[in-house]
Amino acid sequence: MEEKTIEREVIYEGKVFDVEKHVVTLPNGNTSVRELVYHNGAVAIIAFDEQGDLIVVEQYRKAFESLSIEIPAGKLEKGEDPLDCAGRELKEETGYVAKELRHVFDFYGAPGFCSERVHIYEAIGLTAGDRQLDEDEFLENKTLKLEEALELVANGTIVDAKTIMAIQHWQIRTLK
Amino acid sequence: MEEKTIEREVIYEGKVFDVEKHVVTLPNGNTSVRELVYHNGAVAIIAFDEQGDLIVVEQYRKAFESLSIEIPAGKLEKGEDPLDCAGRELKEETGYVAKELRHVFDFYGAPGFCSERVHIYEAIGLTAGDRQLDEDEFLENKTLKLEEALELVANGTIVDAKTIMAIQHWQIRTLK
Repeated sequence: MEEKTIEREVIYEGKVFDVEKHVVTLPNGNTSVRELVYHNGAVAIIAFDEQGDLIVVEQYRKAFESLSIEIPAGKLEKGEDPLDCAGRELKEETGYVAKELRHVFDFYGAPGFCSERVHIYEAIGLTAGDRQLDEDEFLENKTLKLEEALELVANGTIVDAKTIMAIQHWQIRTLK
Repeated sequence: MEEKTIEREVIYEGKVFDVEKHVVTLPNGNTSVRELVYHNGAVAIIAFDEQGDLIVVEQYRKAFESLSIEIPAGKLEKGEDPLDCAGRELKEETGYVAKELRHVFDFYGAPGFCSERVHIYEAIGLTAGDRQLDEDEFLENKTLKLEEALELVANGTIVDAKTIMAIQHWQIRTLK
């Protein structure tokens, strides 16, 4: 089933991602074109505060011109260990430091064209502190109870894949 | 919190997506650059066969050079009704026709830079038939029992966001 690249064109080399166009051979011997977005990957953190509520951030998402409520997350630097990145992003965006970060699963959000792999961790044993946002990062910190979170998914307010997965993961644990 | 575009550069106009670079104003008055992938969106279908097993397809994903097990899905044409697209893709990839397609939720898989919105439907009342793959589409049809599906997520074989969400959605229903 493999698709071998026989021609490769670099379309764009950006800060967040690169874009390439590959001519590939198909299993039937034909060729086809694949447009691809290459991204270093990201991390996301499922974390609960002292009340057992989910820690989320609200920020503007230019790609769909709307505010978005999401679990804390951030981009990997090239070669960076996802575990280190998860600890750093949790501290930067929420101020919390975790005693332990437990790997939950990884996912691709747009497997048809994008190489971004997102590594999800659950934070255990939090200590509160000051957040350390990047100069041009604007986030509002919030927390959600499970019923609220489920309602925000059901009514279409929460539309971020990693956050929907985190809320489902949380619901499964409470039901088990 | 809105980020207003004050300069817009089209980097690439492709078949699957376009790429643009925007200079935006931030809440503090500074400007920043946003690299954006514009995509028409997609649909995905949660469907179960006569045995109650989840219907999935396995295909090669060039973006991460691996086979991937996923629920049936497909790209929206510009202006296409997601409901029509869901019926069409289910038929094309699996042969099944649904009596009803019930909207579950929508998600963005890469909200930091990509406009692709995925609409998830659950198929009710399936009738089996012949699939109608595109000439250059290579898919293997499979079905999964819940325990198998959960194991494939836990061991990192299933890494597709929509499929992980579908499996968790299924697990939640069985636990309730």
